[in-house]
Amino acid sequence: MENLITFTTDFGLTDGYIGAMKGAALTINPNARLIDITHEVPPHDILAGAVIFDSAYPYFPSGTVHVAVVDPGVGTARRALAARGAGSFFVGPDNGLFTTVWERAAEDLHIVSIENPVYMLDDVSHTFHGRDVFAPVAAYLSMGMPLLKLGPRVLDPVRLDLPRPERRPGTLIGHVVYVDHFGNLITDIRAADVKDREFALVVGERLIPRLSRTYGDEPRGEALALIGSTGYLEISINGGNAALQLQLRRGDPVTVRIRG
Amino acid sequence: MENLITFTTDFGLTDGYIGAMKGAALTINPNARLIDITHEVPPHDILAGAVIFDSAYPYFPSGTVHVAVVDPGVGTARRALAARGAGSFFVGPDNGLFTTVWERAAEDLHIVSIENPVYMLDDVSHTFHGRDVFAPVAAYLSMGMPLLKLGPRVLDPVRLDLPRPERRPGTLIGHVVYVDHFGNLITDIRAADVKDREFALVVGERLIPRLSRTYGDEPRGEALALIGSTGYLEISINGGNAALQLQLRRGDPVTVRIRG
Amino acid sequence: MENLITFTTDFGLTDGYIGAMKGAALTINPNARLIDITHEVPPHDILAGAVIFDSAYPYFPSGTVHVAVVDPGVGTARRALAARGAGSFFVGPDNGLFTTVWERAAEDLHIVSIENPVYMLDDVSHTFHGRDVFAPVAAYLSMGMPLLKLGPRVLDPVRLDLPRPERRPGTLIGHVVYVDHFGNLITDIRAADVKDREFALVVGERLIPRLSRTYGDEPRGEALALIGSTGYLEISINGGNAALQLQLRRGDPVTVRIRG
Repeated sequence: MENLITFTTDFGLTDGYIGAMKGAALTINPNARLIDITHEVPPHDILAGAVIFDSAYPYFPSGTVHVAVVDPGVGTARRALAARGAGSFFVGPDNGLFTTVWERAAEDLHIVSIENPVYMLDDVSHTFHGRDVFAPVAAYLSMGMPLLKLGPRVLDPVRLDLPRPERRPGTLIGHVVYVDHFGNLITDIRAADVKDREFALVVGERLIPRLSRTYGDEPRGEALALIGSTGYLEISINGGNAALQLQLRRGDPVTVRIRG
Repeated sequence: MENLITFTTDFGLTDGYIGAMKGAALTINPNARLIDITHEVPPHDILAGAVIFDSAYPYFPSGTVHVAVVDPGVGTARRALAARGAGSFFVGPDNGLFTTVWERAAEDLHIVSIENPVYMLDDVSHTFHGRDVFAPVAAYLSMGMPLLKLGPRVLDPVRLDLPRPERRPGTLIGHVVYVDHFGNLITDIRAADVKDREFALVVGERLIPRLSRTYGDEPRGEALALIGSTGYLEISINGGNAALQLQLRRGDPVTVRIRG
Repeated sequence: MENLITFTTDFGLTDGYIGAMKGAALTINPNARLIDITHEVPPHDILAGAVIFDSAYPYFPSGTVHVAVVDPGVGTARRALAARGAGSFFVGPDNGLFTTVWERAAEDLHIVSIENPVYMLDDVSHTFHGRDVFAPVAAYLSMGMPLLKLGPRVLDPVRLDLPRPERRPGTLIGHVVYVDHFGNLITDIRAADVKDREFALVVGERLIPRLSRTYGDEPRGEALALIGSTGYLEISINGGNAALQLQLRRGDPVTVRIRG
């Protein structure tokens, strides 16, 4: 489906930045349809941007052009990338934001370095490539322009070192990777690691003795663990905010005892 | 007008949840046009969600599909509803979010319980029906799919016990129902209850002696009462924030003395 | 390009106000395509609204209808304006929000006072002209309706007294005009005033000895000055938040020493 462009940035919702970026895209492709994934990635937080983007982009139709800009290195020597993978397109800085895309679409990936000034705004600033480079390139790609017009192929895109659980006999030591709007703590432990097994989870000084199916399965105010909507183990409080009430945050360890 | 879908949720604007929900809708109906009412309903606050939704949805064209998801009971036995009323469509959990719709469209209402898995995503999670059930169903309805394909008719949807003023001789005791972004205090007292009557309002220790027409009718910093844009009595401070400056919040009583 | 409408308001993202406004526009022009510039202008802050709007609207295609509503005087005698300038349209209260538009499009400007009730909602409230007047008018303009149907011509729109730097021999005393989401301090000093000259900037007790090209040119945590993406001098901290760390805010003076 052509003409669909999504945006994931740390630009916030107050300034004129996302307006300028969208205007630049619509000036090139007046039929572009623009969807916000989020503009509230914490400033400069590439890992959070990658986690948020990864939880949303797979649900979009094939052919969508995804722009993601969390770009502390804007204007330096860092490359600007455009890629095609699994039928969709990805545009943004070469800093690891698309790490999970590179992993998922590995077989089928074509990445280029955006270097052709024809597909940028006339005056490219040193501080706002979202408006001057990425949105224009996305607009052209959404109109069907071939990727290879943008610049030379890239075989070594930057990849983030994503957190992964440590496996020990009978134990899995994972980490809180993301805290969502509700205070749910999303970990790096996958459903397959804990499903259909005897399960107990230790987080801080608290023991969660079983895997629940959904929030409402436990009494209000009770800490619980379940497989969240992105397929990872998640720690929650029914009707509450687990991050605040359990005093946990990103990076904190989560120990699962598994048997069977 | 087909293809128009609105969203009202408590998902917040930071995570990937609204992106995933929109992607799911666009994958089913690539021509869907998606409008955000809000994603900032306070978490799990069904009454606030109902009040916000009610102030916006009547302004949309007939045929719009409205999705509203404030859903603390996701994954439990609570039903998922789709409805047609007054020419528009409503999709969300059966927890009272649509109470005012049920009241307004009473004569003309057809509600079903969403049970047919054909119109859901393949893997329905237990924690994110916005993405897996409600957005897909909305996308199908926006393409003209008949409501009755979704499941059996529902005649007893959950209704919230909405706040209503108490009438005593010469006095109306209302309540603050909602505090808006500007700190305006919106009450449950209707225009018809106070218009063309001798009017005085007591809120906390303060007396507001007359009904103003608009904010700028009173001196800056002055507390005032007027009929707000949704047709209810509203307490404001010209150029200020009534909630902060009068120290009032949702549920607080507001007494109107009326004569004539 | 017809059918494109942007919105810049101080309505916030929580209430039903922007939903109602968009619904009103879509009811009139079902083909309207609605783009948010921002709804997070600080409440009643007309200058901030003008600065934000000015950083975004020039990037939109010709023919776009721009609605901006920061409107503390709603319902009073302040006029409601619609204008055509440089091929685009502008709709909002007559309070200076469009000052930079009036300056930029001076030669080519046609402004009218919106007075014809035919192009408003049936019941115009005294407190929400965004929904009842401005969005409907924008929808009609986006369908190609001639401006002059709305009301009589206006030759004296309100203009803000925008901050401008004071020039002294060898010195330019500017001001912080806007603090963005990243804490960057955007001033009223233009690129042309400082480019290709010997440069030193004094802000508070700190001396910034040179003009950088981009954030990453200086070590992390270092205060720096550069020409920002809107063409004005900007003070930043690489990887940090200049407003918080330098304790500066809107209105604070910024002294540039220039030679040559």
